[in-house]
Amino acid sequence: MLLLHLSDIDEASWARAFAQALAPYPVVRRGDDFDPADIRYIFVWKPKPDAFDGLDNLKAVLSLGAGVDALLKHPKLPDAPIVRFVDSDLSQRMSDYVVAHVTMHHRQFSRFRDDQDARRWSQFYPPAAGETTVGIMGMGVLGQDAAARLRPLGFDLRSWSRTAKSIEGVQGFTGQAEFDAFLAGTDILVNLLPLTPETTGILNLETFGKLRRDKLAGGPVIVNAARGGHQKEADIVAALRDGVLGAASLDVFEVEPLPADSPLWTQKNCYITPHIAAISNEQSGVAYFSRVLRDHEAGKALVNVVDRARGY
Amino acid sequence: MLLLHLSDIDEASWARAFAQALAPYPVVRRGDDFDPADIRYIFVWKPKPDAFDGLDNLKAVLSLGAGVDALLKHPKLPDAPIVRFVDSDLSQRMSDYVVAHVTMHHRQFSRFRDDQDARRWSQFYPPAAGETTVGIMGMGVLGQDAAARLRPLGFDLRSWSRTAKSIEGVQGFTGQAEFDAFLAGTDILVNLLPLTPETTGILNLETFGKLRRDKLAGGPVIVNAARGGHQKEADIVAALRDGVLGAASLDVFEVEPLPADSPLWTQKNCYITPHIAAISNEQSGVAYFSRVLRDHEAGKALVNVVDRARGY
Ligand SMILES: NC(=O)c1ccc[n+]([C@@H]2O[C@H](COP(=O)([O-])OP(=O)(O)OC[C@H]3O[C@@H](n4cnc5c(N)ncnc54)[C@H](OP(=O)(O)O)[C@@H]3O)[C@@H](O)[C@H]2O)c1
Ligand SMILES: NC(=O)c1ccc[n+]([C@@H]2O[C@H](COP(=O)([O-])OP(=O)(O)OC[C@H]3O[C@@H](n4cnc5c(N)ncnc54)[C@H](OP(=O)(O)O)[C@@H]3O)[C@@H](O)[C@H]2O)c1
Repeated sequence: MLLLHLSDIDEASWARAFAQALAPYPVVRRGDDFDPADIRYIFVWKPKPDAFDGLDNLKAVLSLGAGVDALLKHPKLPDAPIVRFVDSDLSQRMSDYVVAHVTMHHRQFSRFRDDQDARRWSQFYPPAAGETTVGIMGMGVLGQDAAARLRPLGFDLRSWSRTAKSIEGVQGFTGQAEFDAFLAGTDILVNLLPLTPETTGILNLETFGKLRRDKLAGGPVIVNAARGGHQKEADIVAALRDGVLGAASLDVFEVEPLPADSPLWTQKNCYITPHIAAISNEQSGVAYFSRVLRDHEAGKALVNVVDRARGY
Repeated sequence: MLLLHLSDIDEASWARAFAQALAPYPVVRRGDDFDPADIRYIFVWKPKPDAFDGLDNLKAVLSLGAGVDALLKHPKLPDAPIVRFVDSDLSQRMSDYVVAHVTMHHRQFSRFRDDQDARRWSQFYPPAAGETTVGIMGMGVLGQDAAARLRPLGFDLRSWSRTAKSIEGVQGFTGQAEFDAFLAGTDILVNLLPLTPETTGILNLETFGKLRRDKLAGGPVIVNAARGGHQKEADIVAALRDGVLGAASLDVFEVEPLPADSPLWTQKNCYITPHIAAISNEQSGVAYFSRVLRDHEAGKALVNVVDRARGY
């Protein structure tokens, strides 16, 4: 039996779609009449404190989120394997966001907007894409998709990950030891890391100060579409004001919704979107997790299982 | 002998580079001591009215501009073939501009900026790239490069040209007869046409009214990086105000520099850049035209020759 436990989104709609995709396999929601001991799988988004109570025969926790940082902090999280969402539609949407913001900053959007506001005709020729280095932190599913889309655009690319990667056209940097070297050649820093104890607050003033300063007019840029916990917003405001950063595109925030009194709202060279970079689509979500469940019931191993020790 | 005649740019620097690239072939500038009858090639940018006087033995006019609309209007333009600039570096830079502005509008930049100005956290999920159709007017050197770079991003693509094209992943429309059908499925219209009598003023209210309205939130968008003569700016202002267009990115203008009293400056959903989408780079320009000249002297046919009857 599959139990759905989704907060803040349309659980009923997902339940109907799962019931149809999995029939005759039984699908239930909170409030339905069922014995918790019969639940083999639970599909969760923002689970409540009692979400896992009585689920003594769980085979897997299915996470609608691609990131599991919040789930891993659940005080009663059972010991069952956690399968996270990995999907080409999600990756596509994330890359749409990343490419739009990287190219906008590469083409000096802030500068031309200031000129327009001042009715100033001031010719300035942005560098060709190949003269600009985009550094991607986190070279997993999303980082690799972003790299694959930025590459045909001609950008010089580098990545930073925990373990070594060998991806054509991308210069790989690995671990703490190579973090500073990675930053030293990066003009536009894209964050696609998972949020773990090691990566919390990584977007801070010290990091910004290590980015390459002499290449991109206006100063280096950050694009964060991973988690608000990665960023120190007080540092970002200071860096944007002092010119340590030329601009920032932020889709995620320490507190969401971003509080009305945050100084980020009025920071001109800060580009805010309300955690919409990539959404988990119902159709592909149901298709993916139905396949995971069916394959597992048929005796196959689970895919995309979270490593709790690593934290992602 | 090659004569340089470049206005508004650093002629001396180009002359030095050409002299070095072509040596021992003689290279001269206006004001130098030479017999006009000895000039075989003239390399021009914004030629003055007397530019071609006395050049009775000209074999070719070399145009630094990729577009030759202004040159073709020169009252004393000689009958020699005109070779225009075609270069991968130029195409790359133009595509950089096109991709940055297409993706920015696809990701609903104007909407999120308005929300930010109002400190409004309003979640809205842009469509995936594949749900948005980019229509490219002009499928020549620049249009094809833009299409090749937009395609790996996942956009649905269509093109409009004078003669039929068969390019993988791009639905081709041809000539006046198919113009309306082309527009009817286009969400973001990119103009990369040459300026000719047929294409003058093509970006007008009637054209805008034929674009697809029900797909891209905020309304259809235009991106013009070709020539100011393509656009009717009064129509663009009206369309941006009335919602016929959701946004416009303009790199070129009817009068350049854009006059300080143009209403475009203060139109919030109009994104102005000062004719900087793509610059003809000295290094690649000298390499290209030196090769053209040397090949022609060696008896080979000229490449990228303008068809005066077509106007491009
Ligand atoms: N804003 C949004 O709408 C949105 C939507 C979806 C996802 N996200 C976020 O995006 C994150 C990334 O997703 P994904 O699917 O790409 O994850 P993933 O496949 O697990 O990739 C994670 C990458 O980060 C690297 N990494 C992890 N810890 C590191 C460390 N301490 N130092 C260096 N590199 C480290 C990993 O290195 P190895 O390759 O060596 O393991 C891997 O390359 C998610 O965790 C989620 O928080 C945000
Ligand atoms: N803003 C800037 O910085 C900048 C820089 C460089 C160039 N430009 C402009 O970009 C323009 C395009 O350059 P390009 O090198 O791509 O030119 P191109 O190779 O000559 O291509 C022109 C394209 O437009 C099509 N076309 C011409 N007249 C047409 C008509 N009446 N109806 C339908 N299609 C028509 C042609 O169709 P066929 O294929 O059937 O011939 C061709 O596909 C230049 O003329 C220049 O004005 C601007």
